Amino acid sequence: MKLRAADSLSIDEELAIIRRRSDEILIEAELRQRLEKRRPLRVKAGFDPTAPDLHLGHTILINKLHELQTLGHTIVFLVGDFTAMIGDPTGKSATRPPLTREAVAQNAQTYTDQVFRILDRDRTEVAFNSAWMDKLSSADMIRLAARHTVARMLERDDFGKRYRAKQPIAIHEFLYPLVQGYDSVALEADLELGGTDQKFNLLVGRELQKHYGQAPQCILTMPLLEGLDGVQKMSKSLGNTVGITDAPDEMFGKLMSISDELMWRYLELLSFEPPATLRRWHDDVAQGRNPREVKVLLAKELVARFHSAVAADAALAEFEARFREGAMPKDMPEIVLDAPASGLPIAQVLKQARLAPSTSDALRLIGQGGVRVNGARVSDKALLLASGASLVLQVGKRRFARVTLKTGELAG
Amino acid sequence: MKLRAADSLSIDEELAIIRRRSDEILIEAELRQRLEKRRPLRVKAGFDPTAPDLHLGHTILINKLHELQTLGHTIVFLVGDFTAMIGDPTGKSATRPPLTREAVAQNAQTYTDQVFRILDRDRTEVAFNSAWMDKLSSADMIRLAARHTVARMLERDDFGKRYRAKQPIAIHEFLYPLVQGYDSVALEADLELGGTDQKFNLLVGRELQKHYGQAPQCILTMPLLEGLDGVQKMSKSLGNTVGITDAPDEMFGKLMSISDELMWRYLELLSFEPPATLRRWHDDVAQGRNPREVKVLLAKELVARFHSAVAADAALAEFEARFREGAMPKDMPEIVLDAPASGLPIAQVLKQARLAPSTSDALRLIGQGGVRVNGARVSDKALLLASGASLVLQVGKRRFARVTLKTGELAG
Repeated sequence: MKLRAADSLSIDEELAIIRRRSDEILIEAELRQRLEKRRPLRVKAGFDPTAPDLHLGHTILINKLHELQTLGHTIVFLVGDFTAMIGDPTGKSATRPPLTREAVAQNAQTYTDQVFRILDRDRTEVAFNSAWMDKLSSADMIRLAARHTVARMLERDDFGKRYRAKQPIAIHEFLYPLVQGYDSVALEADLELGGTDQKFNLLVGRELQKHYGQAPQCILTMPLLEGLDGVQKMSKSLGNTVGITDAPDEMFGKLMSISDELMWRYLELLSFEPPATLRRWHDDVAQGRNPREVKVLLAKELVARFHSAVAADAALAEFEARFREGAMPKDMPEIVLDAPASGLPIAQVLKQARLAPSTSDALRLIGQGGVRVNGARVSDKALLLASGASLVLQVGKRRFARVTLKTGELAG
Repeated sequence: MKLRAADSLSIDEELAIIRRRSDEILIEAELRQRLEKRRPLRVKAGFDPTAPDLHLGHTILINKLHELQTLGHTIVFLVGDFTAMIGDPTGKSATRPPLTREAVAQNAQTYTDQVFRILDRDRTEVAFNSAWMDKLSSADMIRLAARHTVARMLERDDFGKRYRAKQPIAIHEFLYPLVQGYDSVALEADLELGGTDQKFNLLVGRELQKHYGQAPQCILTMPLLEGLDGVQKMSKSLGNTVGITDAPDEMFGKLMSISDELMWRYLELLSFEPPATLRRWHDDVAQGRNPREVKVLLAKELVARFHSAVAADAALAEFEARFREGAMPKDMPEIVLDAPASGLPIAQVLKQARLAPSTSDALRLIGQGGVRVNGARVSDKALLLASGASLVLQVGKRRFARVTLKTGELAG
């Protein structure tokens, strides 16, 4: 039998490692039994190849996979290419357009390149669910659909809410959790990891495995990370992410922008510092230490993790220089916008320069005193920026753009 | 262009023929437009090959297909073998066991042999939906499932009732109407016939055809025939049918056993006599004619249709002899039942001899004075029939069995 790194640990010690930073183990007694066999577990984690850029939110789960890998278990990194190639056939969800086989392959490549910054490539199986789903016939799909009831599906939080709110649920949406569950059957997974919002789907896997005569997989749910706003789940579509490929300065700056409260959450879920150290920092701050100093430690740790210690030091120096002197960064995006000769309202400019997601957001930012033009705080929401002008726009502490307004030729 | 028999009729006349004895045309204006093109329509009717014996209830729809055939349209007799071979994968419905390919082929043969007693074999296309459904992949099935919403499916009467009653609905049950609808796409149906209870599924066909760029089929729903009990739908599982392969005497006797009220319903839906004749018979009875005489005309017409005029006359003669003389039929089932030495209660005997579906039904029949033993009416519900006795049991006017009670050896 293959010796695992965890063989020197007691089962209790191994379980404690698995439990740390995770949300829930289902069912812990079953997981304990599996660990007692001292065999490597097949650990499944599924990824949606529609949005291939990893952010810090993803890394909580991937870090856990890495821990499991270090304990000697086998990680199966499952790319859900089958469903990605179908997408949302109703065409109603703009966020789930069907992907071509080529796009899926490319996204999977991007994804794994990023994942292997954390995981050990040699000890990771990469699987694509099209390998077995493409072989399933329509009759097989019908048999799979027979394994679950409509009522059980409507118990899933999001389905239940949509049904009660009379928002349409297309029938194929009920099939996707079954496909995901069948993946566990095909992979003979011992353990599946997913966000807490995936618990229902992970349980479907258990049931299907029982039906196919397999021991049902254990489940490990991982907490969802809040985005930079501290409220919503970190998500690319919400624009509140820290990407693991973000440049050092950007990553550093974004992390320094979070609230003190969110800082503790990030430390808890993302830092590799021992719990005792985190507790000490907490006590220090309670006794008067500036939380900004702890935030710097968080930002440095993460920049160092995804870039290097040198990059982290440089990002800190750059950040402090800017913060101390109110100086502008050396590099900022250069944007040229078309504008009428009469000029363009500031909110429009902020939106078009992508410093604000919408004009209403831009107006709100101005109201909060968060917008500067050439270093001067803007309070007039109706401010017109003159055509021909070259302006440095600043939103908050970190976001800059050099904008030139150009009056174009009249049409026709 | 092929000339149709109906080309000598006006569209109004053709529509009147189609409308007669049917329940609803959807959408009549569309059907009129199609007829105006004076081309043969492709008329789809689907059959479930799990129960291949045709009864009078089926013939209402098949008669209509024959009329449409006579008008020059093309009948597509669709055998739903794909779904029959899947059956009910939950295994919960004993009435829908999956069938083997051989069983389906054999049932389809039995079915079509019976159907071609009514339809013109040369002008009927027989199709099997496995021809296209077997080619569909699981991905195609998912795309098909995307064409309908959960809420719409739960609007279907039976699904809605089961959902509210918290009875489980397996998800594949939502896929079957889509398969049936897709059959219309594959067949490019112009018109689909079905019982009134099929209306929802027939409408799914319309929607899928629209999605696949076809003109949506018209729908013709046909009334459901009540069984011999006059209450429930005629159905083999309820044991209230007149099979079209029933022997002449049996068919005649069953039809003579129906209530006078049900007789008019049967005449309306099953008789080929002109409406004027049926109206006259109705008036005759209103003015004192014995309805039994009309019932004899109904029974003779149907026995003649499925056997011969000679057989109908013979069945009448046999029936009248029995009725006049109270004589017992020449042939009756011979049944030997195991009984304890102390005898067997009459209700048990009626049930085991299949003269009553349950002991409670047997007790009710006795209470109504409908049970005789060796010619004598039974009033004692607790009557014990002696072991060793040979008895002629009679339920109602027509149902007889010769029963011998035998005391078996003691077990062990």
